[in-house]
Amino acid sequence: MKFLIFAFFGGVHLLSLCSGKAIYKNGICKRTFEEIKEEIASYGDVAKAIINLAVYGKAQNRSYERLALLVDTVGPRLSGSKNLEKAIQIMYQNLQQDGLENVHLEPVRIPHWERGEESAVMLEPRIHKIAILGLGSSIGTPPEGITAEVLVVTSFDELQRRASEARGKIVVYNQPYINYSRTVQYRTQGAVEAAKVGALASLIRSVASFSIYSPHTGIQEYQDGVPKIPTACITVEDAEMMSRMASHGIKIVIQLKMGAKTYPDTDSFNTVAEITGSKYPEQVVLVSGHLDSWDVGQGAMDDGGGAFISWEALSLIKDLGLRPKRTLRLVLWTAEEQGGVGAFQYYQLHKVNISNYSLVMESDAGTFLPTGLQFTGSEKARAIMEEVMSLLKPLNITQVLSHGEGTDINFWIQAGVPGASLLDDLYKYFFFHHSHGDTMTVMDPKQMNVAAAVWAVVSYVVADMEEMLPRS
Amino acid sequence: MKFLIFAFFGGVHLLSLCSGKAIYKNGICKRTFEEIKEEIASYGDVAKAIINLAVYGKAQNRSYERLALLVDTVGPRLSGSKNLEKAIQIMYQNLQQDGLENVHLEPVRIPHWERGEESAVMLEPRIHKIAILGLGSSIGTPPEGITAEVLVVTSFDELQRRASEARGKIVVYNQPYINYSRTVQYRTQGAVEAAKVGALASLIRSVASFSIYSPHTGIQEYQDGVPKIPTACITVEDAEMMSRMASHGIKIVIQLKMGAKTYPDTDSFNTVAEITGSKYPEQVVLVSGHLDSWDVGQGAMDDGGGAFISWEALSLIKDLGLRPKRTLRLVLWTAEEQGGVGAFQYYQLHKVNISNYSLVMESDAGTFLPTGLQFTGSEKARAIMEEVMSLLKPLNITQVLSHGEGTDINFWIQAGVPGASLLDDLYKYFFFHHSHGDTMTVMDPKQMNVAAAVWAVVSYVVADMEEMLPRS
Repeated sequence: MKFLIFAFFGGVHLLSLCSGKAIYKNGICKRTFEEIKEEIASYGDVAKAIINLAVYGKAQNRSYERLALLVDTVGPRLSGSKNLEKAIQIMYQNLQQDGLENVHLEPVRIPHWERGEESAVMLEPRIHKIAILGLGSSIGTPPEGITAEVLVVTSFDELQRRASEARGKIVVYNQPYINYSRTVQYRTQGAVEAAKVGALASLIRSVASFSIYSPHTGIQEYQDGVPKIPTACITVEDAEMMSRMASHGIKIVIQLKMGAKTYPDTDSFNTVAEITGSKYPEQVVLVSGHLDSWDVGQGAMDDGGGAFISWEALSLIKDLGLRPKRTLRLVLWTAEEQGGVGAFQYYQLHKVNISNYSLVMESDAGTFLPTGLQFTGSEKARAIMEEVMSLLKPLNITQVLSHGEGTDINFWIQAGVPGASLLDDLYKYFFFHHSHGDTMTVMDPKQMNVAAAVWAVVSYVVADMEEMLPRS
Repeated sequence: MKFLIFAFFGGVHLLSLCSGKAIYKNGICKRTFEEIKEEIASYGDVAKAIINLAVYGKAQNRSYERLALLVDTVGPRLSGSKNLEKAIQIMYQNLQQDGLENVHLEPVRIPHWERGEESAVMLEPRIHKIAILGLGSSIGTPPEGITAEVLVVTSFDELQRRASEARGKIVVYNQPYINYSRTVQYRTQGAVEAAKVGALASLIRSVASFSIYSPHTGIQEYQDGVPKIPTACITVEDAEMMSRMASHGIKIVIQLKMGAKTYPDTDSFNTVAEITGSKYPEQVVLVSGHLDSWDVGQGAMDDGGGAFISWEALSLIKDLGLRPKRTLRLVLWTAEEQGGVGAFQYYQLHKVNISNYSLVMESDAGTFLPTGLQFTGSEKARAIMEEVMSLLKPLNITQVLSHGEGTDINFWIQAGVPGASLLDDLYKYFFFHHSHGDTMTVMDPKQMNVAAAVWAVVSYVVADMEEMLPRS
């Protein structure tokens, strides 16, 4: 079709040298949007077949059961841990046994931090054992711990106003939960801001929308030139209690002990499997989630679910005997929680082929009931994605929203590759996120079936369309 | 009014010797229900004054703030603990300082059990630290712990069917949560049933409607003639995980260590305060909640809220300068969680005066937004309570439901005294019940205001009506 010419100037068709409704532009034939719509509409039966297999057929509950088996066997999978490397080896075998192609591990170097033994006890005004979870990359305390009076603040602004009171104290942040992206700055920056005003340690109210006395961990970031102080999260309950105590002028003293330690970087792998493209095998639709997790709970939700619906997408396509024109590449990232460490190295290695990446997809915000697809890309690409999502009418999940993103795929998106992420019912996500509660109990097999169906239809159709997604 | 006669035979008024619409029956004048309705309706302004003070006026948030101060200061208040006795002494002072009358402590003997240090570790198929909470009255393990293979069952029926597999094992119950009263039997009877078939210990899925890896404690009951084995609750998450593992035929081994110990009974007190009746001081409306709690969290919900809206009811009535005809008696029970121990001894001591108890009230199922009043009593008494509750139309809380009850007031109810309990929005109650999550964070000051208003209106009006509630 590219050999025929159909010229289009100022909205008036002057020539009819392109086939069908294709448009001549910049020296080549461009298909009209009507043609693309027709092409996408032709996938209606394939989409129905995927949905039937995933939601109603033999594959139902498979991603849930596969995930349960892995996380029950291995447990949580912190960067640098033996658990993570065991999970990677198991997944390597799983993907081979599933009959996927080009299954391989791509070596990367990842951080190795361990929390060790940790505890916090309120000594004044009364003895109270405080549940804590040290934050990733935090230093430990001396073996005897840090025993100090507490300064409770509810914001960085209040910390600035009361900077003179902070020296030699443990700063407790009782910031309200607004939303994750706004509130998480207290977890990532709390230690640095407290250290700047002379605090000995910082304890941060967990970034959680609901709590049953549940501490939530996560990464924190030191800053060059600012002293490193130990930092951990506490529960919403204890942060609120200490805030009430402080408001009554009651002196609070805490003894904090943390055995946290950072070890030299260690070897790990991004885990890759493919369905090789039939016509443009060098071109790629990347489907992904991360295999690592925090070291509490089972990492079932964050991001076992995302990793396993990504695997499931390829399994469904393979089971239906489908082979798209370009390559569907599954990547299970390592060390996402430490800031997309595995994904960054993957990007460095593969960016030379960036022009061959049609779409990068990541599911890393739960696999509860999907709301739609978040997408970042040009208006033309978005219009195409809206047509693709219309194939999911049988599931009534057709929305294309803005802000497609993911820690692991943002490297590509920022470089201009269209990116998509799964948006789902996030109501309970931050109840469990990075807590002991991130287990299989959170997961719903039926919701995972639906999420996998969405993921499979989108990735397959984009990988099989005649043209890559346009970048402008 | 009792000196005049108005005879009523077969629905026809034959004589007009009773005043107003009163009815002559069994030799005395009985007021008609219409008269009682009118009497109750005359409390409309009083009810509005109570509601205004509690919900919109100076007293708003008072019960919440008083409760926060106590539970932040003292923490949880287990039967036999110093915390509980400290709380009782503080409440004694609080009630005196509040200007209530006849403030006193009534000595009782209560159980003294301590959980000590406790831990459980899964040794096979992988190392996993299992969150546990030993159950009240459980024995401990030997210092080296009990290390044994696990038998997972989902019901007592399954345990019976698989009795031959239980000997020498740790029985894990993964019973589904149906509702509290049905499911709690696994917590109370799980150890006995496991011991009967030769188990060494039992671990019971927490009786909870929702979990963020939260163990929930509570009382358990040994049986004469059945060996005592250590027993603790585990999280929903771990019970489900072990159930999945067992369903795959995977061998599970757990090491359980419990330092639990029962000490000799100890001295404690029911805490009492009154507004003495102006006309029938010997007659009583009893308003109550329990001051003790489990030894985790703060006991804010169970039953700090119930105890403090009961106190608040008397405070509101006193603040408005009201004094009912009969005595309003506040009782803060001790050792409810061990089976209404304080309340039973109160009943034994005071049952001689049972004919003087018009109504016994207990709030021990949360102080979330009230739905209405649960009531146990005769049809005549119920009809009166419906009129009383109609005074709460300004709050739109007028329902009189069945099954008024409470561990501490059931002794009286079973002996024929009308009983009332507060029914409120229980949606989240069993998220927190007997867990580390039972803290002030759960409590809502505005909901407590409304609950206190309901409690004050009901108790005041029943205490001030001309006649006691009828028992038949």
